[in-house]
Amino acid sequence: MKKTIIPQGTVTSPKGFVASGFHAGIKKNKLDTALILSTSPAVAGATFTRNTAKAWPVLWSKKAVQHRTHRAIFGTSGNANCFNGDGGREAVRRCVKFLSAKLGIAEDEVLIAQTGIIGRAFPTAKVLKGIPPLIETLAPDGGHRAAQGILTTDRQTKEIAVSFTIEGKEVRIGGCAKGAGMLNPNMATMLCFITTDAAIGKAVLRQALKEAVDDTFNQICIDNDMSTNDTVFILANGQAGNPKILTKGSGYKIFVSQLKRVCRTIAKGLVKDGEGVNRVAEIKVTGARNPREAKIIARQIGQSMLFKTMLAGGDPNWGRVVAAVGSTKFPFDPKRLDVSFEGVKVLNHGRVHQEQVPALRKKLQRKQVDVAVNLNLGRGEARFLTCDLTQAYVRINAWLTT
Amino acid sequence: MKKTIIPQGTVTSPKGFVASGFHAGIKKNKLDTALILSTSPAVAGATFTRNTAKAWPVLWSKKAVQHRTHRAIFGTSGNANCFNGDGGREAVRRCVKFLSAKLGIAEDEVLIAQTGIIGRAFPTAKVLKGIPPLIETLAPDGGHRAAQGILTTDRQTKEIAVSFTIEGKEVRIGGCAKGAGMLNPNMATMLCFITTDAAIGKAVLRQALKEAVDDTFNQICIDNDMSTNDTVFILANGQAGNPKILTKGSGYKIFVSQLKRVCRTIAKGLVKDGEGVNRVAEIKVTGARNPREAKIIARQIGQSMLFKTMLAGGDPNWGRVVAAVGSTKFPFDPKRLDVSFEGVKVLNHGRVHQEQVPALRKKLQRKQVDVAVNLNLGRGEARFLTCDLTQAYVRINAWLTT
Repeated sequence: MKKTIIPQGTVTSPKGFVASGFHAGIKKNKLDTALILSTSPAVAGATFTRNTAKAWPVLWSKKAVQHRTHRAIFGTSGNANCFNGDGGREAVRRCVKFLSAKLGIAEDEVLIAQTGIIGRAFPTAKVLKGIPPLIETLAPDGGHRAAQGILTTDRQTKEIAVSFTIEGKEVRIGGCAKGAGMLNPNMATMLCFITTDAAIGKAVLRQALKEAVDDTFNQICIDNDMSTNDTVFILANGQAGNPKILTKGSGYKIFVSQLKRVCRTIAKGLVKDGEGVNRVAEIKVTGARNPREAKIIARQIGQSMLFKTMLAGGDPNWGRVVAAVGSTKFPFDPKRLDVSFEGVKVLNHGRVHQEQVPALRKKLQRKQVDVAVNLNLGRGEARFLTCDLTQAYVRINAWLTT
Repeated sequence: MKKTIIPQGTVTSPKGFVASGFHAGIKKNKLDTALILSTSPAVAGATFTRNTAKAWPVLWSKKAVQHRTHRAIFGTSGNANCFNGDGGREAVRRCVKFLSAKLGIAEDEVLIAQTGIIGRAFPTAKVLKGIPPLIETLAPDGGHRAAQGILTTDRQTKEIAVSFTIEGKEVRIGGCAKGAGMLNPNMATMLCFITTDAAIGKAVLRQALKEAVDDTFNQICIDNDMSTNDTVFILANGQAGNPKILTKGSGYKIFVSQLKRVCRTIAKGLVKDGEGVNRVAEIKVTGARNPREAKIIARQIGQSMLFKTMLAGGDPNWGRVVAAVGSTKFPFDPKRLDVSFEGVKVLNHGRVHQEQVPALRKKLQRKQVDVAVNLNLGRGEARFLTCDLTQAYVRINAWLTT
């Protein structure tokens, strides 16, 4: 079985997807709208922010995604369309109505995601005017422009596509995302649009997305805040012609592992491109009593402000790792604990190797560092990706004005 | 009933307490040990860190506090005596044994708290040598030196004593604390020692302490980390001669309200003196469905990195407050939500008053700002005290070396 990453892969790398990006005028001088269309009916999955203050596009899409088929993903950037009164709901309705009429598809076949400033009236008229040019420019090589259309303060697009085979048929998954770079001036919103030509049932597709998101996007952080707009969509149109995946058999396993690969690559890109980020750390927790505890412990370390400032300073201050492990409610045995930075153990079954610290400090100057914690209690494992907390992060988020 | 704050009040302001501070040599050139002694047997209460990685002094004191009476609180600074192997446990044992023998009290009558660097061998010999001078200098005006003996990177001591009456008898409560300023190089440890001459039963004393700590020390943050050493002790020796408080009657109510006053004053001092702190915010949540939800919502806002950076920039970015409210799992109605900064509503029953923002920005330049959130759902109220997340915080915590 071949598994490859497609050079310059985008959301239009899978068969039967076209896309476009356009400058409608929500932002100045930048692409601010994106459209992805499947040329045939697709099934969809989605995950949304758990913030109880949900933006209007999230409320629309949560309902629409229940529909049997989907054709389009519409994304905008520059205005979160959140907490702006009933006008915001009306903006979503009018965009969806106009777009679906122009495309000749059902309203519920349109999924929508928006990102930007909270609490501002949505420039509906401008966006409506942008829809015809978006449709006119839909193209098989339009994936990169669509990726650009949803960026905010991101330094670059996050895009990838992979190719693999299921029972002899080539299947592709493509994805693009906008960043966990902080939004001017509100919060880190993450939008991710995934396309695939796999033939797969809606129920298993949703299960696959949940598994992939839990292991990737739910195991990263820039800061400890939760956006009102976070959204991940996947559309699967079946044009690869593989035997349809309807159960959790071998085809499903291949599909989900490749979907995780796409999500993990994008997740890493999001963290690296976070505002003010200089250094990224991958935390691996092993030996926990079970995977769930491993996941929570890894997250506790990755979200610790002291760990994140330590990372900024490139200092192998293992005491902060131990304190973070202890901050969860799960018991652990100090006499069994191992802590390593970049493969070198500074704590070995609870014994401190302080003499390693000077050498470790040099290794921690790297742009990406590995931190390994082994509790030696069981077989639970988890990973978490985090970034340093830098003075630049503070500057960016403190002095952006409303 | 008179209630006053005692000028320059300390832990020796209540009757029957003597104290001292000494430079034993854990740190360079600074007081690093403290002793507080009740001249008659007292009852004690304590609260400890919930971190499962507990320092040796915490493990000792958790056990010792079960004893019927207590006489002494022994504090040291500069070494956390945590995660340093069995030598650390032995250090506690030897200090307690020597101190109790010298004072002629039971070992379990000694409570101990330590703060400083994690993972280093404890300088037991130095500290043992410091115990005789500590005992020799015990004095009724020694409270301030004891307060100095537990400081680490704190810019100043946090001390207060209050006087009030219970059934005609003057009762006093005194307290000192060391800071939630970040420790070089590990973490924010908070130690707080409280003394009172109230006559009060041990069971109600412990209840009163729990109530006070829940409302004050558990409603503040500098960052999102939890120390291995956090400890609050209270000793009550009954020398005020009030009718002994044994139930939750009127005497208890007076006592607990004054204990909260002491804890709240110290808590505010801790936040103001946090490393890198320039601005403090008091968040008041009202109209929650119940007090518990109010508390969690207030904490969610106060711990949000985006809220804290916003505060650093002095920017009335209410969208971040809304997003933090929504980050809890509790439902709220956007159309009922009020958000005010410094008494000026920027969100009124969900309607945005963006025109207020320029004026608010000026008000947010103050050193202390009030943020009020009313959910208009019920009668649950809570307060939370937090500080800004500044570039100085990052600098201090990133570049302190192990």
